[in-house]
Amino acid sequence: KIYRIALLGGDGIGPEVIRAARRVLEALPLCWEWLEGEIGWGAYQRWGDPLPSETLTLIRQADATLFGAVTTPPDVPNYRSPVLRMRQELDLFANLRPCRSIPHPISRPDVHLLVVRENTEDLYVGRERLEENGETAVAEMVITRRASARIMRIACEQARQRRLPRVTLVHKANVLRQTSGLFRRVALEVGAEYPDLQVDEMLVDTCAMELIRAPQSFGVIVTTNLFGDILSDEASMLVGGLGLACSANIGEHTAVFEPVHGSAPALAGKNLANPLAAIGSAAMMLDYLGEDRWARCVELVIHRVIADRQVTPDLGGTLGTQDVAEAVIRYLQYV
Amino acid sequence: KIYRIALLGGDGIGPEVIRAARRVLEALPLCWEWLEGEIGWGAYQRWGDPLPSETLTLIRQADATLFGAVTTPPDVPNYRSPVLRMRQELDLFANLRPCRSIPHPISRPDVHLLVVRENTEDLYVGRERLEENGETAVAEMVITRRASARIMRIACEQARQRRLPRVTLVHKANVLRQTSGLFRRVALEVGAEYPDLQVDEMLVDTCAMELIRAPQSFGVIVTTNLFGDILSDEASMLVGGLGLACSANIGEHTAVFEPVHGSAPALAGKNLANPLAAIGSAAMMLDYLGEDRWARCVELVIHRVIADRQVTPDLGGTLGTQDVAEAVIRYLQYV
Ligand SMILES: CC(C)[C@H](C(=O)O)[C@@H](O)C(=O)O
Ligand SMILES: CC(C)[C@H](C(=O)O)[C@@H](O)C(=O)O
Repeated sequence: KIYRIALLGGDGIGPEVIRAARRVLEALPLCWEWLEGEIGWGAYQRWGDPLPSETLTLIRQADATLFGAVTTPPDVPNYRSPVLRMRQELDLFANLRPCRSIPHPISRPDVHLLVVRENTEDLYVGRERLEENGETAVAEMVITRRASARIMRIACEQARQRRLPRVTLVHKANVLRQTSGLFRRVALEVGAEYPDLQVDEMLVDTCAMELIRAPQSFGVIVTTNLFGDILSDEASMLVGGLGLACSANIGEHTAVFEPVHGSAPALAGKNLANPLAAIGSAAMMLDYLGEDRWARCVELVIHRVIADRQVTPDLGGTLGTQDVAEAVIRYLQYV
Repeated sequence: KIYRIALLGGDGIGPEVIRAARRVLEALPLCWEWLEGEIGWGAYQRWGDPLPSETLTLIRQADATLFGAVTTPPDVPNYRSPVLRMRQELDLFANLRPCRSIPHPISRPDVHLLVVRENTEDLYVGRERLEENGETAVAEMVITRRASARIMRIACEQARQRRLPRVTLVHKANVLRQTSGLFRRVALEVGAEYPDLQVDEMLVDTCAMELIRAPQSFGVIVTTNLFGDILSDEASMLVGGLGLACSANIGEHTAVFEPVHGSAPALAGKNLANPLAAIGSAAMMLDYLGEDRWARCVELVIHRVIADRQVTPDLGGTLGTQDVAEAVIRYLQYV
């Protein structure tokens, strides 16, 4: 089997971390076909569109996509983030963001949680308007039964594969009785179909506290789009921060894997960018493709290179971006 | 001068922590007149309204109000939180939530920040509707120029009184270009009138991370209602959690001071509730009343009783709720 993978480096450090991840994938005894595409601010400057239709076609043709990062231009009116468009136009409804302790002093111990973030609706639907001569702005938060049910189902399926079979649904139904309330009700309904799981609920403000007080107590956290954005970033900082945070955007037909970090223009081209979030995202892709044994190997090796300080300066090492990829490849020979 | 203070104990542990705070206030060489009022689930059961109009009148008549906590009943349709109604009906537009390191191992060192949360609009306006037979729920997020300007002004005035004259405005304008964008634009405009301050901006997801990575770097964080709810709870957990988190709800004409914690029904009547958040809120009230010297004394003593473990079990002590008040009163004689 040849895996066809769309590679979208994007802007800033995106291309270099994706190159590092690709090298790791190529070191495995698997066959790859790479389809390279453009995305982001660079694509906008060349083609007038940060997500050209050729790129969307590429993603649709591929078995999966590995995506780097994009730069948001400061003041282009009507510029809509290609990341959001990709998620919505391809209906990549589940954003999975694992957070796991790393063998490094900046990390809290015993954390092994997964944030499952709804990825298509909520305040991200782009329904905004101005009123009263621009004195007032209104945005609509949209929550549907369908999206709430399917994200909860993904969360429960994920929880079944984990040591701690707990799903915590996070909402603000005490204030948003209808919207957050709909998400809560539907998620509890779906959760009741999984008697083997511990399903509980938490207010989003409480969850923001509990992540700090007792992050080790969480299994899967499932929530709506914006809360997932905030809580997953918070959780990632407990275990090393964005240099390591990886994610999957999963739909019915395809999936896009991306490091959570941005394009960090100031670091670009300096061989300083930490590629481990991109490599971790590649491991999630291996899992999605059914190569879960190799996924586990790459994850294990990521932990080993961190423990041995074979890392970039942000984690206290002295290696460059591609050197880290080489270290990962070297360690892979011994697992 | 006699200060007329409305006392609203509320439900659960509310009355006992407010009693403790009142005793501390009475131990100061100041004159008080207490106006006791009802609020919460108990008030609803007695009067059919969790915020009876008598209570609103009391708050309006008082120089300031000290409020405990309320219980949210699980399934009363159309029950609207009296806390939100109080904030909105009295136009208490600024919610101030200080977070400061405490002399205790559970606290991060060197934190001295203040979250200034807009308290009247955003998704809290209560504009929700169901569509498509309840398959879809929509909530409106409302942001106005007026509320954005006045909350930023409060934030800047607060920052001027602080060691670190930094104001960080927190938004999600990369996605919510019009709503969060309006808040951002107006806040930057108002901020430009304060050249003595360092005014910067941050995305809400980034802020959720930065609070963990470098909480000591923040001065004042100013943001819209829901983000303020989440971030202030997160920040409080860095420095001891809700047992210590105090807050002020400030309007043009009056102000309501409340511990951030809930009514904790399971603890009620057991002499276990930590009264320090209520006592800290009373200190904020002293400040508001112009008794800032006494405010500083009470704050200092709160730190001393914590350092000396004259506290409730949640902070590793063995004292009861009222014993902590007595310890605070005893220490006040020596400052
Ligand atoms: C870039 C931005 C639109 C995006 C989001 O808010 O979803 C990012 O923060 C993320 O979490 O992937
Ligand atoms: C009780 C609830 C409505 C309230 C809020 O969301 O504002 C609380 O969480 C708070 O922070 O004071």
